[in-house]
Amino acid sequence: MSTARLLRPSANCLKSLKPSPRRYTTPTTPPTNPRHFLSIADLTPLELTTLVRNAAIHKSTVKSSGPASLPRHLHQSLAGHTLALMFTKRSTRTRVSSEAAISMLGGHPLFLGSADIQLGVNESLHDSSVVISSMVSAMVARVDAHSDITQLAAHSSKPVINALSDSYHPLQAIADTLTLSEAFPSNTSSNTLGLEGLKIAWVGDANNVLFDLAIAAAKLGLHLSVATPKGYGTPPEMLQHIHASAAPNNANFRIHETNIPEEAVKDADVLVTDTWISMGQESAKAQKLKDFAGFQITAELAQRGGAKEGWRFMHCLPRKPEEVSDEVFFDRERSLVWTEAENRLWGMLAVLEGFVVKGGKID
Amino acid sequence: MSTARLLRPSANCLKSLKPSPRRYTTPTTPPTNPRHFLSIADLTPLELTTLVRNAAIHKSTVKSSGPASLPRHLHQSLAGHTLALMFTKRSTRTRVSSEAAISMLGGHPLFLGSADIQLGVNESLHDSSVVISSMVSAMVARVDAHSDITQLAAHSSKPVINALSDSYHPLQAIADTLTLSEAFPSNTSSNTLGLEGLKIAWVGDANNVLFDLAIAAAKLGLHLSVATPKGYGTPPEMLQHIHASAAPNNANFRIHETNIPEEAVKDADVLVTDTWISMGQESAKAQKLKDFAGFQITAELAQRGGAKEGWRFMHCLPRKPEEVSDEVFFDRERSLVWTEAENRLWGMLAVLEGFVVKGGKID
Amino acid sequence: MSTARLLRPSANCLKSLKPSPRRYTTPTTPPTNPRHFLSIADLTPLELTTLVRNAAIHKSTVKSSGPASLPRHLHQSLAGHTLALMFTKRSTRTRVSSEAAISMLGGHPLFLGSADIQLGVNESLHDSSVVISSMVSAMVARVDAHSDITQLAAHSSKPVINALSDSYHPLQAIADTLTLSEAFPSNTSSNTLGLEGLKIAWVGDANNVLFDLAIAAAKLGLHLSVATPKGYGTPPEMLQHIHASAAPNNANFRIHETNIPEEAVKDADVLVTDTWISMGQESAKAQKLKDFAGFQITAELAQRGGAKEGWRFMHCLPRKPEEVSDEVFFDRERSLVWTEAENRLWGMLAVLEGFVVKGGKID
Repeated sequence: MSTARLLRPSANCLKSLKPSPRRYTTPTTPPTNPRHFLSIADLTPLELTTLVRNAAIHKSTVKSSGPASLPRHLHQSLAGHTLALMFTKRSTRTRVSSEAAISMLGGHPLFLGSADIQLGVNESLHDSSVVISSMVSAMVARVDAHSDITQLAAHSSKPVINALSDSYHPLQAIADTLTLSEAFPSNTSSNTLGLEGLKIAWVGDANNVLFDLAIAAAKLGLHLSVATPKGYGTPPEMLQHIHASAAPNNANFRIHETNIPEEAVKDADVLVTDTWISMGQESAKAQKLKDFAGFQITAELAQRGGAKEGWRFMHCLPRKPEEVSDEVFFDRERSLVWTEAENRLWGMLAVLEGFVVKGGKID
Repeated sequence: MSTARLLRPSANCLKSLKPSPRRYTTPTTPPTNPRHFLSIADLTPLELTTLVRNAAIHKSTVKSSGPASLPRHLHQSLAGHTLALMFTKRSTRTRVSSEAAISMLGGHPLFLGSADIQLGVNESLHDSSVVISSMVSAMVARVDAHSDITQLAAHSSKPVINALSDSYHPLQAIADTLTLSEAFPSNTSSNTLGLEGLKIAWVGDANNVLFDLAIAAAKLGLHLSVATPKGYGTPPEMLQHIHASAAPNNANFRIHETNIPEEAVKDADVLVTDTWISMGQESAKAQKLKDFAGFQITAELAQRGGAKEGWRFMHCLPRKPEEVSDEVFFDRERSLVWTEAENRLWGMLAVLEGFVVKGGKID
Repeated sequence: MSTARLLRPSANCLKSLKPSPRRYTTPTTPPTNPRHFLSIADLTPLELTTLVRNAAIHKSTVKSSGPASLPRHLHQSLAGHTLALMFTKRSTRTRVSSEAAISMLGGHPLFLGSADIQLGVNESLHDSSVVISSMVSAMVARVDAHSDITQLAAHSSKPVINALSDSYHPLQAIADTLTLSEAFPSNTSSNTLGLEGLKIAWVGDANNVLFDLAIAAAKLGLHLSVATPKGYGTPPEMLQHIHASAAPNNANFRIHETNIPEEAVKDADVLVTDTWISMGQESAKAQKLKDFAGFQITAELAQRGGAKEGWRFMHCLPRKPEEVSDEVFFDRERSLVWTEAENRLWGMLAVLEGFVVKGGKID
């Protein structure tokens, strides 16, 4: 797509190998087959529930008694281990939460930004993945195309964690689910978070953050209503994938698409949005602002549309004023944004526990 | 002032909030009210003395027996903790000393340079402060305008440490006071460093390094003589602030401003300078070199002005030859510059002890 | 040479000092005289053997039982210690292996890239070396001119490790020797790796990687055959230095230079190459590709030249397709490239053990 992608020599190298004699194959099967975390779709409903519960427990433990009070299997569990953070895009929340969570377990986060490593440019993704994964205990990668991270994962001998791709943002979805479970607590059994039937209204652009949130909703039986301007809706194949992610027993799950914000917020428990102009899309700003007129989340929209009395607001940040009014964003009672941001830390801690410390076993 | 500052959306956001109904307020009061370290003025004379004494003790301990020999309340006291280093400007000494001191206590220094985070540009200082402070144990920030760091501190739930602003450089002043106390040892009681009446001559530009050194001098009863070219002196409001920082019982403190280097060095125990051209001011270099003619610290100047026989030299580095002759700078007997640089490490260790490990209790 | 180097003020400063009175000297002799690792030439044959054996032992230990199983003198031996990584050039393998090895010993790797520090530009190499070495436990430096790293070492109070200069790449040579000893195991006594007489064919450009590999070959009694295009051979003074590195009792060592790739690969056990276009030389690419026509390592070349039946392939990566065919590079039986890359980690671990943890004692 971009020139940078055309420059990637590896894709061609690997393709041209295919007709070669059997003996000369790329080492596509890593010595071990680690479990990766590329999307919420990689989790069963029970695993998602468990991850979020674990995050909540660790949050409570560390906030009351410090990192040294973590359970034995976690305390300094990554001491002597390095985890590579390979980020092609700038990041604040993901980077700080990842580094802090890794350090909390005693590990060393090795940050490689675009000035340090250009994935697929100077070296094929295959080669980088094989080499780097042989020296570290996990790779946390922020990429452009989701296919980049699936390639990294295919050749890695260690777990790969998606720290944002153009399709998914599972770490955000974990934090959002934790935030919802705290804001709407239930007294249910340990096999569910008790969020079934909760209605989420997404008002804005259909993007990677929405897609993994929708998959989480599918797995947990939430109702999701998505209002986007015409032409900005969820791509049909993604919608199909989201539906396919619903657990068989999650008849509760519903997803509804509309172009009318008021329709989406009707009876909603939570109003959610994200920036309309993602990193790297700044040039399209003027057109987008025009297309998204009327999609700003405001108290008036909530009232006009008929959101539930005690509706809450979520946003993964960073926030621009066009998406949400100051009134809503800074409302101490409605706005969950600061807790949602902090929960990135506790979500990552549980993800590291499941995928790195316990090697993919989430219990 | 600069275009970058005009771009900061948050300042406007927050201002426009003021007339909003009472219920919608920004979370300006963080859940806890940590003690910050933004300037030497934040310390009482006794606290400054204690910090410097602690730095000296830790220096001796670690240099003779390694970091594992630190006292129990410090050893691995930051294990599992991440401290954010948010630096809008390049740094060698501050960065290396901060990272080394944090690691010495077992903590993880997370460096965020201007390529990683642009404070106040992509996100308001308020939002960055609330979010980042919710994930880390402290923020060490190097900013342009001092108001940036006071804003960070106002909204942070964790201690903020000033790693240089356009007004103050408290970490340098701690290291300088430690260096002075080592070079001019005394046998006084534990409530003083015994530096009362010591005469310091600052020859050069009146800048952030001088201001915090002057406040330290005010608190400890030193005599400070400042020679700058006309137009480069200490701003009147800063001078007033320095005077106000003098402890009531520190009648010893004197500060004298002049435009004649020889006058300043008269009877001085220590000659101090700093670079004339600070980071980001390179364009003004030619004019400054002209204005500062005659302000280079040399052995001849010291003799001509009548500095004390055994006068010493200090410079916070990096050094340019125009400020000080090679003869003085590399003089093993007079020049304290290498010890002064190393003391950045031991000073930071004591600052972390007081403001992070012990939560603002300096004893 | 480059404009950047002309800007270095320190070289001139220091030279102009020489005629100064005796008393005013630069502190060129650091308080301690640490042992540095700037080239394989710094090791005796026995030390090289021991380093590689230690690397193999630690590799086996950590891979089977994790970093906590390292011997007592290594486990968390660098806890509380910071090691500076000062890299003027981008790096993947060296950086990841260095950071991972340092963390494995509990230390903190402090990465300073060219955006963080410009060695010799804003401050003299002398000043940077004295100051930084006073705050850290070692400096791992990647420089352009080898004279930069010798200057750093001359003024450093802590061990300096060469992470690549224009002349040498000792960390690569350690990893390569480890890789050879694994691929060609022997049952010999503990005083040798049993590689005597092994024939290595280097086909490509004579560069820093070759030079330290050649010195390792000289110390261990290998046979080295180097095929380069005319004008790209080993400089005579380097060849002399390599010969001088041969241990007196290593009559086994032979080095042969040719311009005919087939001649070099004759009877070779291992075929080795490296990129023809090093970092910073991209502009010379078209001419180089022309000059190096016929130097690509292929199965046909190996057969035509008469390499040994079971010949293996090595490359320090990153790899470009012009140097080696996909067939050879991805051949799971011949190609040692992935192990060679991973061995950078284990080699660095042994180097840190010898030069930092044990202060230069390699046993």
